[in-house]
Amino acid sequence: MRIFTAIIIAATLTINAQERLAEGRARQALASPIVNADGSITFNVAAPSANDVKVWGNWMGQGDKPLSLAKDSDGVWSVRTSALPSDMYSYSVIVDGVTGLDPLNVYTLRDIASVTSIVIVPNGKGDDYAVKDVPHGTVSARWYRTDSLDMTRRINVYTPAGYEESDEKYPVLYLLHGMGGDEEAWLTSGRAAQILDNMIARGEVKPMVVVMPNGHTSIEAAPGYGSEGMKRPYTPLPDFYNGDMERSFGDVMRWVESNYRVRTDAAGTGVAGLSMGGFNASNISANYPGEFDYVGLFSPGMRRTPSKSWVFDNLASKRKTQSEKGYKLFWIGIGSDDFLYDDVKRYRETLDSEGFVYEYHESAGGHTWSNWRDYLRIFLPKLF
Amino acid sequence: MRIFTAIIIAATLTINAQERLAEGRARQALASPIVNADGSITFNVAAPSANDVKVWGNWMGQGDKPLSLAKDSDGVWSVRTSALPSDMYSYSVIVDGVTGLDPLNVYTLRDIASVTSIVIVPNGKGDDYAVKDVPHGTVSARWYRTDSLDMTRRINVYTPAGYEESDEKYPVLYLLHGMGGDEEAWLTSGRAAQILDNMIARGEVKPMVVVMPNGHTSIEAAPGYGSEGMKRPYTPLPDFYNGDMERSFGDVMRWVESNYRVRTDAAGTGVAGLSMGGFNASNISANYPGEFDYVGLFSPGMRRTPSKSWVFDNLASKRKTQSEKGYKLFWIGIGSDDFLYDDVKRYRETLDSEGFVYEYHESAGGHTWSNWRDYLRIFLPKLF
Repeated sequence: MRIFTAIIIAATLTINAQERLAEGRARQALASPIVNADGSITFNVAAPSANDVKVWGNWMGQGDKPLSLAKDSDGVWSVRTSALPSDMYSYSVIVDGVTGLDPLNVYTLRDIASVTSIVIVPNGKGDDYAVKDVPHGTVSARWYRTDSLDMTRRINVYTPAGYEESDEKYPVLYLLHGMGGDEEAWLTSGRAAQILDNMIARGEVKPMVVVMPNGHTSIEAAPGYGSEGMKRPYTPLPDFYNGDMERSFGDVMRWVESNYRVRTDAAGTGVAGLSMGGFNASNISANYPGEFDYVGLFSPGMRRTPSKSWVFDNLASKRKTQSEKGYKLFWIGIGSDDFLYDDVKRYRETLDSEGFVYEYHESAGGHTWSNWRDYLRIFLPKLF
Repeated sequence: MRIFTAIIIAATLTINAQERLAEGRARQALASPIVNADGSITFNVAAPSANDVKVWGNWMGQGDKPLSLAKDSDGVWSVRTSALPSDMYSYSVIVDGVTGLDPLNVYTLRDIASVTSIVIVPNGKGDDYAVKDVPHGTVSARWYRTDSLDMTRRINVYTPAGYEESDEKYPVLYLLHGMGGDEEAWLTSGRAAQILDNMIARGEVKPMVVVMPNGHTSIEAAPGYGSEGMKRPYTPLPDFYNGDMERSFGDVMRWVESNYRVRTDAAGTGVAGLSMGGFNASNISANYPGEFDYVGLFSPGMRRTPSKSWVFDNLASKRKTQSEKGYKLFWIGIGSDDFLYDDVKRYRETLDSEGFVYEYHESAGGHTWSNWRDYLRIFLPKLF
C-alpha cells in the first residue's frame, strides 16, 4: 500500500496544503461545495492566510455583490447560500481579489474566457443535467472538410444509446451555440448529452443524432483544440453575423449525411440555436427552405442583418417560400429579462405581419444557460 | 456591436476585475502564461489586494519551493522561470496560501483530484503535444457492456484521420492509465490524440485505433461522467491490483472488435499502460498469450501480486507460454529517479532468469507524465 500512497502524493502535491488544513479540522474531511437538502449550497475554503474570501455564482443577479465567507478558528472560510432552485450553477471563489475555482471542487467548465467551478442542485431540472444510471449516447469529436470555407473544422456529434447496434436512420438535430461559444458549449454549459440521455431514457424524447458544429467560421475549433494553440480566447471574433456559417451549412449537412445514418427528409431534420446560433438557425431554415421541419430559436440575436452576404437578401421572400414548402414547428423562446427581448419582439412582429407561423415561449430570466438548457428540455420532446 | 458587447459582459463577469486591472496597465493587455523564446515562462497575476503570490509547476522537483512572484506598482505580480525544456507543463498559482489556476489561462486539466493550468513550451517534444495543422483523428467517448463485471462502462476511442472513409481494418492499441487516472487521463495529461495525430501525419506511426478504457473496475466512468455524480474523486479506489481489469479485459476487446474495423491478429494488436496500467498490461499479455504482439510497460507498478484472482496464478508458467506463442515487442520504460525503479529492476531480473525477452528503455526523471508522454512517442513507431 505504501508505494501507492507515494504515487498519490506525487500526483497531488498541489492540494496537499489544503488537505493538511483539512486534517487540522479534527480529521473532518473538508468538502466544497455541499448541496444541502433544502437546495442551499455551503462553500468551504481553507485559507488561513487570506484576508477576504468571496463567492460569486450565476444564481446571483448581475448587480449582486459576491457572497462574503466567514472565517473560523481553523482558517476555514464558509458561507451557505439561500435555497436555490434545482439547476446547474457555475461559480467562482475570489481570494483576496483574485477570481478562481473552488479549490475543493474538480468539476469545472470553460465558458468563453472564464473557467468556473460547477455544481448541480438536484430534485428538479438539475436532475436532467446530471449523469444518471441510464443508457448513454456516444459523444464524438470529429473533423469535417468544408469546401465553402476551404477549411477542416472540428465538430461534436451525439449519437443516442443503441445507434451503433442499429441499422435504422435517425432523425438529426443541428444544435448551434452563441457568439461566445464553440462546438463544446452545448456539451459543457448546455449539458446536452445528459439532457438527451435522460429524456430519451424516459421515453420523452425520440432517439436522435445531435450535431454541434462550431459557428465561428474564422477558426477551426474551440480554444485549445485548434492549431492556433493555447491562446487566450478572443471575443468577439470577426466572423459573427457575416453569413459564412449559413452559406457553408450545406457542407455540414452533407458531411453528416455521409458519415451518419440520419434521415434526410425535412420531417427528420431540425436546426436550433441560442443567441447568435438562433440567428443562424433562422437564416439557415429560410435559406434552405423545405429542409427543416423543426426550427428552434433560443434567445435569438435578431437585430443585426448585414447585407454583404446573399444569406441576408430577401429574407421575407425566403420565409414566404419556407411557409409554402411547410414545416411543423418554428419555436421561439426568450426570457422576459433578456436584453434581446425587444429585438425578438420586433422580429416576432415582422413574422406576424408576414403571417409566418411560430410557437412562442416566454420564460422568466435573461440571456442565460439556465434558460437555454431549459428551452432544450422543452423543445426536444416536440421533435420528430 | 453594442449589444454583443453586452453578451460578453454578461458571460465574463468573473474576469472583469482582472480585466479592469489590465486596462490600468496603460492599456497593455495582461497575459499569462507567456512562453518566451528561450523556453522560459513568464507568469502574470493581477492581484493588488494579495499579500503573497506563488507559482508551483511540475517542471520543479518535489522538494522545490514554489516560485515567489514580485508585485509591481499596478498590483500585477510576475515571475519568469529559467529556460525549460520543450514539454507540456501543469502548474498552480497560489494566492495567499490558496492553490488555484492561473486566472488568465483558460487551459486546464484534471489529474486525479487536482485541477491545474497547463502550458506547452514548443520547439521539441512539446510540439507533439500541441494541436498542429495536420489531419485529426476522431475521439469518441462511448459506453460498453461488460458481462464479467455486470456493468456498463465509459471508454474513449481514438480513430485516426481517414478511418471513417476507409474500408480497411486497422491495428489496435489498448492504452491503460495509472492508479490515479481514468479513461480521460491519456487524452488530457497524456495528449495521446495530439501525439498520434502529429506522428501519424509525419509518417512515423502507423494509423491505428487506440482504445482507452477505465482501469478502475469499481466505477463506471471518470469523475463527473458516471452516475455517482460530482463527488470529489476518491483515491485510492478499492479495486486496484485485484485482477478485475485483467479478467474482464476480454469484454473490452470483444466490444472493440465488434464496434470498430480493427485487426484481431496478434500482429495487429498491442497493449500498453503506465504505472498500474503497466502492471495490467503485463498481466493481460501473460493471461491472453498469443493475442498481443506488442506490449508496453511505462514505469510499471510491479510489486504487488495479490493471490485472490486467477490472473496472478502461475505467472512464470503463463509467460513461458507467452514466449512460446511468440511476440514482437515487450517494451519496458522507466526513469532512473522513479520510486518504482527497484521494483522494475527486480521484475526485469525475474524476466531475465526466465529467459523472457524484452526491450528496456531507461530515461532520466521519475514517475511523471513527462516521461509517459515521451515513452508513448518512443513506443508508437515500433508498432505494427
